Amino acid sequence: MPGGDMAKPLLGRRNMESNPDLAPAAGRTVGILGSGDFARSLATRLVYSGFQVVVGSRNPKRCAGLFPSAAEVTAQADAAKKTDVIFVAVFREHYSTLCDLTDVLAGKILVDVSNNTEINHHKESNAKYLASLFPACTVVKGFNVLSAWTLQSGPRDGNKQVLICCDNQEAKRIVAEIAQVMGFTPVDMGSLSSACEIENIPLRLLPAWKIPVFLALGLFLCFYTYNFIRQVLHPYIREQKNKFYKIPVEVVNSTLPCVAYVMLSLVYLPGVLAASFQLHYGTKYRRFPDWLDQWLQHRKQIGLLSFFCAALHAVYSLCLPMRRSHRYQLINAAVKQVMEKTDAWIEEEVWRMEIYVSFGIMALGLLSLLAITSLPSIANSLNWREFSFIQSTLGFIALVVSTLHTLTFGWTRAFDENQYKFYLPPSYTLTLLVPCTVILAKIFFHLPCIHQRLRRIRNGWEKGRYVKFTLPSATGEYSSGESSSNV
Amino acid sequence: MPGGDMAKPLLGRRNMESNPDLAPAAGRTVGILGSGDFARSLATRLVYSGFQVVVGSRNPKRCAGLFPSAAEVTAQADAAKKTDVIFVAVFREHYSTLCDLTDVLAGKILVDVSNNTEINHHKESNAKYLASLFPACTVVKGFNVLSAWTLQSGPRDGNKQVLICCDNQEAKRIVAEIAQVMGFTPVDMGSLSSACEIENIPLRLLPAWKIPVFLALGLFLCFYTYNFIRQVLHPYIREQKNKFYKIPVEVVNSTLPCVAYVMLSLVYLPGVLAASFQLHYGTKYRRFPDWLDQWLQHRKQIGLLSFFCAALHAVYSLCLPMRRSHRYQLINAAVKQVMEKTDAWIEEEVWRMEIYVSFGIMALGLLSLLAITSLPSIANSLNWREFSFIQSTLGFIALVVSTLHTLTFGWTRAFDENQYKFYLPPSYTLTLLVPCTVILAKIFFHLPCIHQRLRRIRNGWEKGRYVKFTLPSATGEYSSGESSSNV
Amino acid sequence: MPGGDMAKPLLGRRNMESNPDLAPAAGRTVGILGSGDFARSLATRLVYSGFQVVVGSRNPKRCAGLFPSAAEVTAQADAAKKTDVIFVAVFREHYSTLCDLTDVLAGKILVDVSNNTEINHHKESNAKYLASLFPACTVVKGFNVLSAWTLQSGPRDGNKQVLICCDNQEAKRIVAEIAQVMGFTPVDMGSLSSACEIENIPLRLLPAWKIPVFLALGLFLCFYTYNFIRQVLHPYIREQKNKFYKIPVEVVNSTLPCVAYVMLSLVYLPGVLAASFQLHYGTKYRRFPDWLDQWLQHRKQIGLLSFFCAALHAVYSLCLPMRRSHRYQLINAAVKQVMEKTDAWIEEEVWRMEIYVSFGIMALGLLSLLAITSLPSIANSLNWREFSFIQSTLGFIALVVSTLHTLTFGWTRAFDENQYKFYLPPSYTLTLLVPCTVILAKIFFHLPCIHQRLRRIRNGWEKGRYVKFTLPSATGEYSSGESSSNV
Repeated sequence: MPGGDMAKPLLGRRNMESNPDLAPAAGRTVGILGSGDFARSLATRLVYSGFQVVVGSRNPKRCAGLFPSAAEVTAQADAAKKTDVIFVAVFREHYSTLCDLTDVLAGKILVDVSNNTEINHHKESNAKYLASLFPACTVVKGFNVLSAWTLQSGPRDGNKQVLICCDNQEAKRIVAEIAQVMGFTPVDMGSLSSACEIENIPLRLLPAWKIPVFLALGLFLCFYTYNFIRQVLHPYIREQKNKFYKIPVEVVNSTLPCVAYVMLSLVYLPGVLAASFQLHYGTKYRRFPDWLDQWLQHRKQIGLLSFFCAALHAVYSLCLPMRRSHRYQLINAAVKQVMEKTDAWIEEEVWRMEIYVSFGIMALGLLSLLAITSLPSIANSLNWREFSFIQSTLGFIALVVSTLHTLTFGWTRAFDENQYKFYLPPSYTLTLLVPCTVILAKIFFHLPCIHQRLRRIRNGWEKGRYVKFTLPSATGEYSSGESSSNV
Repeated sequence: MPGGDMAKPLLGRRNMESNPDLAPAAGRTVGILGSGDFARSLATRLVYSGFQVVVGSRNPKRCAGLFPSAAEVTAQADAAKKTDVIFVAVFREHYSTLCDLTDVLAGKILVDVSNNTEINHHKESNAKYLASLFPACTVVKGFNVLSAWTLQSGPRDGNKQVLICCDNQEAKRIVAEIAQVMGFTPVDMGSLSSACEIENIPLRLLPAWKIPVFLALGLFLCFYTYNFIRQVLHPYIREQKNKFYKIPVEVVNSTLPCVAYVMLSLVYLPGVLAASFQLHYGTKYRRFPDWLDQWLQHRKQIGLLSFFCAALHAVYSLCLPMRRSHRYQLINAAVKQVMEKTDAWIEEEVWRMEIYVSFGIMALGLLSLLAITSLPSIANSLNWREFSFIQSTLGFIALVVSTLHTLTFGWTRAFDENQYKFYLPPSYTLTLLVPCTVILAKIFFHLPCIHQRLRRIRNGWEKGRYVKFTLPSATGEYSSGESSSNV
Repeated sequence: MPGGDMAKPLLGRRNMESNPDLAPAAGRTVGILGSGDFARSLATRLVYSGFQVVVGSRNPKRCAGLFPSAAEVTAQADAAKKTDVIFVAVFREHYSTLCDLTDVLAGKILVDVSNNTEINHHKESNAKYLASLFPACTVVKGFNVLSAWTLQSGPRDGNKQVLICCDNQEAKRIVAEIAQVMGFTPVDMGSLSSACEIENIPLRLLPAWKIPVFLALGLFLCFYTYNFIRQVLHPYIREQKNKFYKIPVEVVNSTLPCVAYVMLSLVYLPGVLAASFQLHYGTKYRRFPDWLDQWLQHRKQIGLLSFFCAALHAVYSLCLPMRRSHRYQLINAAVKQVMEKTDAWIEEEVWRMEIYVSFGIMALGLLSLLAITSLPSIANSLNWREFSFIQSTLGFIALVVSTLHTLTFGWTRAFDENQYKFYLPPSYTLTLLVPCTVILAKIFFHLPCIHQRLRRIRNGWEKGRYVKFTLPSATGEYSSGESSSNV
């Protein structure tokens, strides 16, 4: 970004200057207690943004050199005296060491910028704890979502929100103003009781991905075991054939498409369930059960994991002819051929493979379009109809093409007795269950009678109730066009 | 996004509060007529943003539970009385049911948030129609580009523009203010006659992609037919050989590179035509014909489709050795070899393939760089020179490398009589026409004499006219550096 | 973007209108000297944003038609008289032609929008030069980072910063205000001496990529030569075998993984060096040497190039079985097999390849996750902990998996005399040096005693000094959580 480091928000500053009655934020004196990394980055940014900065340290002499020269580094009590807004950049464990300052701090605004190392580590949020130690102060929680690095390098596009909460509106306004002059976007999170939530944000580790990842791992494990038994264990036990070399590549490559395919159908299953739910209760005003709500919200992650598995399956498949085992098998087949003097060409096998390879590539191409439009910067440039066309319509076509890929891969093997190892059917037959249910349900919901009923429900119509006491014109109440987005 | 749901724009609210003479937006009472999805989401968002909300419903009792408790749900006439700004969240078909309210609504601002289900469904925009029904009201069009979901979940990065149009500046200002306090970015679209355009926006389905996609499909169809005749029909008719198994994979894989290659050259052809146009007329002030303008604007989409086809071609090619047919052919070749006792190694064939595979990978690598820098978030982080270097220079190198790939693939086959099936030349010779023209034209435009003339034209020089009555110094008028961006 | 062209920032305008004492920006008369592309685009944008525009041209009659009709096109002196803020859209070479206007321009604000064609082409920035020609004017540098195209099509998301510098605060404020009303984000770059820096920005060509790209090219060249000697030259000289066909594909494909693997380890090496540096000096307050700082800042680019090489390596590898040479070798092997009547199956070779292919795919999968999260729009949606988990933890796992891939690829060949061609060890043994060092160092730093010492240093502890004169509680000074981000 051009001029990242030196970027000072002209607008913010100007606004302040032009409204002198507002106690202009820039030019204001701001205090910082503490001299760690965060304190230093904060001081640097505040100085850049035109504030007077007073740093209160236990050891002002030693620390002075670490702060920008425009900041005044002095004793804690001295710093606290000089300003009304004080950033407390001290670990929670050491809040109590500030208690000597209780008198000097009385009536001032304390900004708690601390984070914890674990989610919900303490019963009480750090900010609440600080407030309980200094009842005469107004504690504002904020700035903790920023890293010292972001503070120093200046706000970039996107990640520049500063979540703020406080019980006092005026104090919140002042701190929000400071954040804005520093180039960040203050976001009001309400009263100080939200501090706990704000403190947990920087500790979150991809929470939306947890369930989908475990789901994918679970499916992988199940299908891997199943395929291992059929492809490796069965020939070893029944025919004493050593097929253990299949463990790293071939068994994985039979497992990945199962996972990808089932996961893809799990993206469209909750929409089908939601529609059935609405049809059954004859209303859209009844809340979905929680598990369905959760599921609907995780569809994007499940879809992306499905694409990831499908892409890995493609790479594994492409690697197959590169391997030694493939080479040796080919040579041995050629040698056998020479001995038997027959022609190696089974027309049916050729067709089967040409077709399923072809469907596989198509499905992968469609899924990659879905994955690309899931990127935030592309999703933001689409209107709702475009997004829904790609994610819902193209996605469903991808599911259908995947089903054709699976069916042509399977061909007639589901009806071949030899394919039932230990009475276990080929794994592709198992994977077909959920997707086919989804596809059939979708077709069912598109039958004219059902489709119309569903549309009426989504436009606000209700079973029973409606007929009795509302006017027909009431259906005219405007409902946004995305009614079909959940299906 | 952290705190998405609860995000209230502090800045907006503060600005309002500090300018009390402005009739502060937040805290203002806002009315909503209607009780559908959109009305509910709108009410929720307005309440979050600090507005007093009055909902007018035909059936207040039944609907009250569906709205946030802070919103007052009452009869339509009652709601209309209580406020000056009223959102009309009712389908166009039911506007006339509001006619009872004509007197109460007189002099108020009506915000039309409706959408249509088809582009240009009605002659008159919904907003114009509403204005004709309520001539005593000021109608503002706006908020229709938002989905109910966006309204409820709060504005995210990017997709938060609210397009507004109105004949009355003051009414437009007030509604823009409300949008801004709600966290959206109001965009002034001028007078109410723009309402039609605004109403069409949510109905657009990737308009910029339509022509490029049809172009790609058209090219695919032509080349597929051509290749089908040469590769499948010819051996069947002339030699009674059954090559129909080539339909799903091999014919597709000969077609895709043709499409990708021609499309890539079509990205650079309009620039060449534009330069010829400028050279011919000796001025840059003459507008390009419309078709050329359109073409220049679709280059990005054509380029991305070219990359998509190239990527599919790569995947298809990589699948070739995985197929049964390949396996059978190999074995049969080995068996034949054994019978004939010769050595299978044609040095020329080996070299041809090593080189064209190598060029193919290079071209794909370059195209993938182009595709990545087309992502909005990356394109935005590049300055003009960087963007032009990648898209124009690297892109042209990709075209040259693709040409080398095609030429080495073809080798001497263009001069081999046996390759002319039904007198049809190999398809690669056909695809070479446009790209080679583009490359030669580019080289021609870089000849010193032509290049200088072109540069002078792009700096404002004009044939004939200029010499006569302008001072030489007039060429000093500053022209931005991107003069070559169109070529 | 909806309504891009017509987008007028309502907010900006309103703000101006509501503070009439501020000399409202919109509605203000703005002058432009020059009639090139940039002048025209600027005029168009200013008119759209509600400004009165006066264009001063040497030849008003001829130029009038090129400007929007709302703009007044007149003689230069006339235009200069009518306004206080004048954009100078003239090439630096022709600044001196404006000297006739010295008297009319006195006391006015001149906005220098010019760019150069080369970095640091002139000793003095264009703005400084303009200021020296017109000492009675206030020169503001700005708007040069915009292209004429951006000006005309209106600001888009992201790339809408306007860097401004000037010695006079009031003039800077006025120009910043104009930029803001036009929909851009003004960024204060300080005094006019920064003009040089601002003028260089549009000329930058991916500066952050220069060193990493040269590093990758250098490594490629070294390893290519090394592999060429071992794989092509050695068999030719020692055994008179013609292996030159390996030049385009096979030698490249042995070189790419070496580059990718070494580059990946170079991403993690500077972190290890930084930790060693901190451990050695026992403090984190000592600045890293410049080369280390530079290196730490280029890790992202080095990592992405590593991924690019790894992806190319994957494509090359997948192409191997597709080639003629592979086909001929297979057939010949089959023929040889038939003659010798043995079974082609070396269990160890099969296992080696299955395992290293498997590790290779895993490493590529992990690296692709890293590459995706490097996209700006995704990186911005992650908090620091998530970003560090993916880039640091997953990245290190990718390094370990790559090492396993390399080791299983190598198998026992490092101990096989025949592999030492011209006494040169196999290239994979060379590539293992840096990565293994990094992995061992990482393990070493995770030994409890070392880890604890490192953590204490990163929390502010210092060797020697600390023990003597600071209180234990001083360690409580708040340090941001990202202390481990550099390792």
